[in-house]
Amino acid sequence: MTPHNKEILEKYGTITEKEIENIFASGFASQTELADAMKYSLTAGGKRIRPALVMEFCRVNSERFEDAVPAAVAIEMIHTFSLIHDDLPCMDNDDYRRGKPSCHKKYDEATALLAGDALENLAFRIICSSELNADIKVNLLSELSSATAKMIDGQVKDIEFLAKDSISVDELLEMYSLKTCALLECSAVMGCICAGADKNKIASARKYAQNLGLAFQIRDDILDIIGSEAELGKPIGSDADNNKCTVASVLGIEKASLLAEEYTNNALSELNNFNNNDFLKDLTKSLLKRYK
Amino acid sequence: MTPHNKEILEKYGTITEKEIENIFASGFASQTELADAMKYSLTAGGKRIRPALVMEFCRVNSERFEDAVPAAVAIEMIHTFSLIHDDLPCMDNDDYRRGKPSCHKKYDEATALLAGDALENLAFRIICSSELNADIKVNLLSELSSATAKMIDGQVKDIEFLAKDSISVDELLEMYSLKTCALLECSAVMGCICAGADKNKIASARKYAQNLGLAFQIRDDILDIIGSEAELGKPIGSDADNNKCTVASVLGIEKASLLAEEYTNNALSELNNFNNNDFLKDLTKSLLKRYK
Repeated sequence: MTPHNKEILEKYGTITEKEIENIFASGFASQTELADAMKYSLTAGGKRIRPALVMEFCRVNSERFEDAVPAAVAIEMIHTFSLIHDDLPCMDNDDYRRGKPSCHKKYDEATALLAGDALENLAFRIICSSELNADIKVNLLSELSSATAKMIDGQVKDIEFLAKDSISVDELLEMYSLKTCALLECSAVMGCICAGADKNKIASARKYAQNLGLAFQIRDDILDIIGSEAELGKPIGSDADNNKCTVASVLGIEKASLLAEEYTNNALSELNNFNNNDFLKDLTKSLLKRYK
Repeated sequence: MTPHNKEILEKYGTITEKEIENIFASGFASQTELADAMKYSLTAGGKRIRPALVMEFCRVNSERFEDAVPAAVAIEMIHTFSLIHDDLPCMDNDDYRRGKPSCHKKYDEATALLAGDALENLAFRIICSSELNADIKVNLLSELSSATAKMIDGQVKDIEFLAKDSISVDELLEMYSLKTCALLECSAVMGCICAGADKNKIASARKYAQNLGLAFQIRDDILDIIGSEAELGKPIGSDADNNKCTVASVLGIEKASLLAEEYTNNALSELNNFNNNDFLKDLTKSLLKRYK
């Protein structure tokens, strides 16, 4: 990314983290250890792609991002809840997340379970208690709850696939579109909703994020094969260890890279429907090239 | 309860179950096994006290209960999600719930975890997609998410208490008011919100349910000591086995019974602020006398 666009991404990250601080400081979570666990996972070094998408899709539609801050924090809470529960022993059983002990390792399983439950709930609560008007709130909550349902369906499919001998690329892409794309779509769409954008803009934002999500997940698969443990923050080849089928493992790295590039190009072409799309284009390209 | 009031309670139960059927039939949950697990726990024979409170508090305020059906189903979803997660091995590790295998025993831990997550989310989704106006939806969602946060805080306190040598009655009552009363309060208040009731009615409904919840939980403690396994649907003395402090174990059965009666009387006196309160009074008294 250009230094200017990197600064914008960092700015959105800082705004997100500041808002998280404010929320916890203003008594939204009263139980100390639970709040600690929620904050630990919320601030454990994510890239803040989803909040950035929410705020930036608001900005490209309305020239201001401020109204989108509650929705940006809410989607990060849903994302974080899904990671905490996904890491639990009965799920992926991952001891590390982003190079740090996962929530149930830092605390314990019961605390991690409840921290995930509480973050899922807090996402809805934050939007309810924002300053937005009631119609916008309901549209946001509706979008957020539909996306969360899809994300959970994707996790179920992901588990089902572990028991299968062979999975087609189409099946994997369908699972990715639930597990990974749904929250990215929700981010872009919520940004549009906060800006009062019309149906066409919303449809285009959704298509953009769907393609971005597929490219992002395939790149993740590739990194899981080629990436180094230190860079990715989780044991190298962890998917392979689990005998996990991915688009990259089925197609091979070369074909998978071409597919990720195709989805990235589709995403970029949707961005032409938005003015001031320089940051989004740069971010989209950079995610295809990332090494972590 | 009088046969007439029993019929009303059954009617509310039937309406709740029919609406649950409708929701699953109309594609709100697309993953088969996940939907099965969600439905299994939702229909595993609960008393449907919370949905009945939602609908009846709507009816006593507006003479109709129909607008309250989505909120009634939503609170039952939050209650069921909390039971599924509470039964998991890392929490209470209960193999049975209401005399049937708990969700993670009937399915597996990952499915139970995700079914709980999905029910928590579906509760919000159901209210979003109801026919109510946006202001009422936001008030309901706000109430529901505040109550869910309290309920989770109560579960955290419950776990913390297990590690303590002695817990005072006041500490236990504070924990009950979070873990048990919050969702009952939310039920009564959501019923009032659906009916467009004023602040005084809402405050009174909240006070009623707070007292009902304390009486209900203390009765539960007493039944855990005196109740039979077959009647209660869980192993007799399961709290005692866990060395769990309860109001009944600390105060003794006699004093605990008097306290439960006092809370029941407080609850009954709040009901005098509502017309047509016969069903609610009968239900309140019957919960104090229940054997399961």
